[in-house]
Amino acid sequence: MPNIQITLEYEGTNYDGWQRQKNTRRTIQEIVETVLFKILREKVKVISAGRTDAGVHAKAQTANFSSENKIPLLKLQYSLNSLLPEDIKVTAIRQVAPDFHSRFSAVSKTYRYTILNRDYPSVFLRKHVYLCAYTLNIKLMQEAAGYLVGEHDFTSFKNGNDAQEKSCVRKIKSIKIKTQGDYIYMDFTANGFLRNMVRNLVGTLIEVGRHKLKPVKVKEILLAKNRKSAGPTAPACGLCLIHVKY
Amino acid sequence: MPNIQITLEYEGTNYDGWQRQKNTRRTIQEIVETVLFKILREKVKVISAGRTDAGVHAKAQTANFSSENKIPLLKLQYSLNSLLPEDIKVTAIRQVAPDFHSRFSAVSKTYRYTILNRDYPSVFLRKHVYLCAYTLNIKLMQEAAGYLVGEHDFTSFKNGNDAQEKSCVRKIKSIKIKTQGDYIYMDFTANGFLRNMVRNLVGTLIEVGRHKLKPVKVKEILLAKNRKSAGPTAPACGLCLIHVKY
Repeated sequence: MPNIQITLEYEGTNYDGWQRQKNTRRTIQEIVETVLFKILREKVKVISAGRTDAGVHAKAQTANFSSENKIPLLKLQYSLNSLLPEDIKVTAIRQVAPDFHSRFSAVSKTYRYTILNRDYPSVFLRKHVYLCAYTLNIKLMQEAAGYLVGEHDFTSFKNGNDAQEKSCVRKIKSIKIKTQGDYIYMDFTANGFLRNMVRNLVGTLIEVGRHKLKPVKVKEILLAKNRKSAGPTAPACGLCLIHVKY
Repeated sequence: MPNIQITLEYEGTNYDGWQRQKNTRRTIQEIVETVLFKILREKVKVISAGRTDAGVHAKAQTANFSSENKIPLLKLQYSLNSLLPEDIKVTAIRQVAPDFHSRFSAVSKTYRYTILNRDYPSVFLRKHVYLCAYTLNIKLMQEAAGYLVGEHDFTSFKNGNDAQEKSCVRKIKSIKIKTQGDYIYMDFTANGFLRNMVRNLVGTLIEVGRHKLKPVKVKEILLAKNRKSAGPTAPACGLCLIHVKY
């Protein structure tokens, strides 16, 4: 049975995240699966690389599913884009090896968090950035980020209790923080992320940038393995899954 | 009486253009004047550099008004941004000479038209570009644009009859067409524009790009001084006022 990979772009603003849930029908997974059923006349389960939270965006989420249907791939992409809502689109499609799994085959994922660092919003990017008017010291944030890179137990940066997670150890390959005009881009690349992990890292790095927390304190927060030791969860609107590496 | 200049950014999607009209209250001018009245307790008339059409955006519209109110300018900007809707914001404010007039003092204006040249939309830019799936020959479009630069009578590229316009002669200083990935950016700089002029120029240049019209034909269209001789009006969503030079 052919295994098909799609690359998805979506604006998470109006959705309750990627993963299908019992109490809502507004999840990306449910909408994509419903549209696929309309086209393929076949119930398929779509597996994504990352289970983005409510309100989080994706520029290149990858997902895969198996189907008996022999519809040409470009026709399938065209049909998907015709039926999907305007805030979810398929940007690429291809057949992959039968054992390819969007999540387990991924080597790393990169999330970008965008801060608009001024005191008035951007009309055009208002749904895609977090407006933060505090003066932020980028050098201190970069220094603190240095302590987070590597393999650590990220319990302090994880929200809720997910029974599925056996270990809270993840390996952050890099954290790149750069500025461009009033924008601050923070790119996090890791082999995996815990629930709300990027947003909690950002919330903590903002505390550092505001001089409320010394960079070296981040080391202690990691060791504390306690969510309460870290900073707040940054808003979902600034977060976007931008790359999955296989 | 101090003459105050503001720079505005707006997403035109939900508005009937800049200019106050009798049959609608959804114009940028009316909304800005209403908010100014709330803050200044004084009726002011806001003059803009360009009267953008319904659905057209602005990254840097400039406007000015006179007020007796002695409110500090940064406080006025902050109050405006607090009361304006999320798709209209003031990005700069300053006091200008008493004789400064946003339209008459302008040396030139630059409008950018953005085409997304592929067969599926962009989730993030869906409201700010025109999706055009036709294969376009950029070199031919640039050649045709060459005939439009300079001082000409642009009657063929003007919609409707505006009694206010005494002459249809305008001077286009430059038309720059460049591509970046799937995007085509067309920047038009002129001393002034007629009603729907940029969109009519774009519609005609697209006909050239599609090989439906030879570039040199554009010369004949100018000489015809007849709207019917030119191509269709490109959609408003792709147009944005990006710079006003004083």
